[in-house]
Amino acid sequence: MDTISFTPIGVIRTPFTTLDDMPIQPAGAQDAAGEILLREEFAEGLRDLDGFSHIHLIYHFHRSSGYDLKVVPFMDTVERGLFSTRAPRRPNLIGLSVVRLESIEGTVLRVRGIDVLDGTPLLDIKPYVTKFDAVPADRFGWLDRNADKAETLRSDRRFTG
Amino acid sequence: MDTISFTPIGVIRTPFTTLDDMPIQPAGAQDAAGEILLREEFAEGLRDLDGFSHIHLIYHFHRSSGYDLKVVPFMDTVERGLFSTRAPRRPNLIGLSVVRLESIEGTVLRVRGIDVLDGTPLLDIKPYVTKFDAVPADRFGWLDRNADKAETLRSDRRFTG
Repeated sequence: MDTISFTPIGVIRTPFTTLDDMPIQPAGAQDAAGEILLREEFAEGLRDLDGFSHIHLIYHFHRSSGYDLKVVPFMDTVERGLFSTRAPRRPNLIGLSVVRLESIEGTVLRVRGIDVLDGTPLLDIKPYVTKFDAVPADRFGWLDRNADKAETLRSDRRFTG
Repeated sequence: MDTISFTPIGVIRTPFTTLDDMPIQPAGAQDAAGEILLREEFAEGLRDLDGFSHIHLIYHFHRSSGYDLKVVPFMDTVERGLFSTRAPRRPNLIGLSVVRLESIEGTVLRVRGIDVLDGTPLLDIKPYVTKFDAVPADRFGWLDRNADKAETLRSDRRFTG
């Protein structure tokens, strides 16, 4: 299939400069403050975004490379199929997080609950809309017993590739 | 900034072959059935995914091109900043939907509530986990008054580029 090319629209600044002590989900990073520095050329596209309390960030796992189709997730002790996990080493190195939007000044967005490495290239911002994004999910596979661990677990180097 | 390249991991088959009558959000496509045809080489990565009731699909808006930083969204009548919308014409043509996972047979995933064009290239699958993905959002900007329209509105050609 054809290759699709994307160019970062900005960069995400966070307190997490190494993989050794990073939250693995926003649930473990409730208070972690970060900044999104959007490229100036996209400034006009931020209009109206400050009306939203939360936003999706879609970004590039720039410190990962390669992938395995079976992985032992941070939140488990046995191998799981890659697509049943959020592991950063994936065929396409795309990450997804929902964060709280606190303010926008010019092309700088202040956010809370950020769980990515400092310097992460940002690919897209989309508004979080409960009506579209909060679905009545009722089965969470292997995460049923493990999702609570996200609040305390930190990453390690298993996904640097 | 550097260009990042992705290669589709599969394709999404849906009943929507033209932009003229497509739901604009899964909320408007509750019963629309679709299939994800994953490339065979990724089959092993599907293990454990059938334990999840819902999944995120990240895909390429392959029928869109270019973008405007101000757009009149399907759900509104005035111009909004692009990043406060889900409009498919964006600097990076990346789409995000949450769908219900009904079954997996081999590399074919049956899903419900699909809102993308037939033939859409799939970039990633991630499990939907309420604990991570359903946040206590309380402000929805211009969509506060308009999100309900997603259940009945259909797309048109304004975003083909």
